[in-house]
Amino acid sequence: MNKKIGKQTFLLQNPPVIAAHANVVGKKEGQGPLREEFDTIGSDNTFGQPTWEKAERTMQKLALNKAMEKARITPDNLDLIFAGDLLNQCISSGYHARDIAVPFFGLYGACSTMSESLALASMTLDGGFGEWAGAIASSHFCSAERQYRTPLEYGGQRVPTAQWTATAAGAVVLHSSGEGPRVTHVTVGRVMDKGIKDANNMGAAMTWAAYDTISTHFRDTGRSSSYYDLIVTGDLGKLGRTLLIELFKKDGLDLSSNYNDCGCMLFDMENQDVHCGASGCGCSASVLTGYLLNRMDRKELNRLLFCATGALHSPTALGQGESIPGICHAVAIENKK
Amino acid sequence: MNKKIGKQTFLLQNPPVIAAHANVVGKKEGQGPLREEFDTIGSDNTFGQPTWEKAERTMQKLALNKAMEKARITPDNLDLIFAGDLLNQCISSGYHARDIAVPFFGLYGACSTMSESLALASMTLDGGFGEWAGAIASSHFCSAERQYRTPLEYGGQRVPTAQWTATAAGAVVLHSSGEGPRVTHVTVGRVMDKGIKDANNMGAAMTWAAYDTISTHFRDTGRSSSYYDLIVTGDLGKLGRTLLIELFKKDGLDLSSNYNDCGCMLFDMENQDVHCGASGCGCSASVLTGYLLNRMDRKELNRLLFCATGALHSPTALGQGESIPGICHAVAIENKK
Repeated sequence: MNKKIGKQTFLLQNPPVIAAHANVVGKKEGQGPLREEFDTIGSDNTFGQPTWEKAERTMQKLALNKAMEKARITPDNLDLIFAGDLLNQCISSGYHARDIAVPFFGLYGACSTMSESLALASMTLDGGFGEWAGAIASSHFCSAERQYRTPLEYGGQRVPTAQWTATAAGAVVLHSSGEGPRVTHVTVGRVMDKGIKDANNMGAAMTWAAYDTISTHFRDTGRSSSYYDLIVTGDLGKLGRTLLIELFKKDGLDLSSNYNDCGCMLFDMENQDVHCGASGCGCSASVLTGYLLNRMDRKELNRLLFCATGALHSPTALGQGESIPGICHAVAIENKK
Repeated sequence: MNKKIGKQTFLLQNPPVIAAHANVVGKKEGQGPLREEFDTIGSDNTFGQPTWEKAERTMQKLALNKAMEKARITPDNLDLIFAGDLLNQCISSGYHARDIAVPFFGLYGACSTMSESLALASMTLDGGFGEWAGAIASSHFCSAERQYRTPLEYGGQRVPTAQWTATAAGAVVLHSSGEGPRVTHVTVGRVMDKGIKDANNMGAAMTWAAYDTISTHFRDTGRSSSYYDLIVTGDLGKLGRTLLIELFKKDGLDLSSNYNDCGCMLFDMENQDVHCGASGCGCSASVLTGYLLNRMDRKELNRLLFCATGALHSPTALGQGESIPGICHAVAIENKK
């Protein structure tokens, strides 16, 4: 039986259930408007570790451990985990996976990773490949800044279009049956590139991928934007969010009432000096596993389209004159009526 | 229905068929003992591109195009592609995926990528997620050396345990039905680490993961090593290969007659100055999509256990005192009797 509907969307036949979700965020994220929705807020950003890289993998560990605790399972129960992060060779995920010794698929989707891991975990469970799966993503301001831009000690000035890489990790534990929000559809994204070359304006670069995936999701499913209580993108930021609303407006679709971007939600945009908003795999991962899924658990939201967005460039590629390709995967999460 | 058997293995219910496979290799690889089995051999390693990174993504493109040509499909037919490489932010895969605009999942599994992509492509097709899927992996000696070690111009001397990163790309096109070798089982690997810290001895670091996955595969399936015409690991090299045979000998299993390592097969170990052998995602990808699957097509091999192996460290992690974690995924490929 082919579960594909339309061009890029899969309709899950036995929708996996989000049995538990948890997160860990840094100090600055814990001072933002969503602070009440996080499981763990670090007092500094080290999480007791001697390097930022080790701090980031510790966040993955704390997030998954908390999610497993809520789901009342141990690593032995996990049939598969899917994880990724922003660091070269995805070391946050690889080293974390070493410590729990669970069958592991490493992903690279940049800031789209929470969608990608959730999509693949859901598809494999729906396909009959086990009963429990984990989906994890993380980022850390300090490990990302020194890898992608300059070490923090340089004190480089940030341009107005820049975004602030979130220090955050999120984990979802999925089960093949049970009670809870269910993953019902996955629209797998294509890589889109409209020629934007400014690494300090990644929101704009990723917007085209978000537009492509979300509009394809509507066409494939026959759903209109109003079907969803909320549509969220990952980290387009203030500029990208505005651009996406404009793109849909041209198609006659008004997203302004039920669309938001995790990058515009994580921080207080007026007072936390984050310019265009938050970014990083951990941004959408923590907003999903905190605020959004908490609201679904409370039945304040019943139909969520979660669309994390990623920029697939590298410093080397940009140095060689390339533009920034983007990707977005859409995952529909719904409460039973 | 749960397709899991034993601890880490999935039994595919509707085994996807390898409809086509193709590869591209560099000049040195094209002078090795498997030269007759490759689709395209570059006259230099640039493939007409101005940088090594662009050369590598061009190899992915040529490999997938050739595989699609053999399968008589176009990118429009591909429901999903899974791809990865060794470069930071997996740019070979991301930029290649941009050019074909097919629903794309980016992977990071280091040199285990060909197993990982083949495993996920097979599992998703078996799960009903479309009819055609692509699995791709690549590496390039020149892009890898300057990223992981030093620019080639330095002329750094290589230690005896070092391996030679293959300039190669391989692509498999899978179909949900039809004639050809079928993917029947997948054993998903766990990350293993025995404390090896020498980045010039990755074969030894990865051997433990290969041992863990292959012995788990035997236990999970009830198959003995003699069930397979050939068991191949990815790029353990001469030292790792010897170590793996010894580890199994301790369990009373003699692998010496039907086991080999792609890293020991790609080059002429006596005369091509590659020290312990080949490595890189492209090593196992090109040996699989050339020599091995050609032999399966010719019915010289009917039961193959393909076990690409990856080292999940980064230069940053090693600089912070970490050891090298390894992973191995085993994919059983079988001709119908």
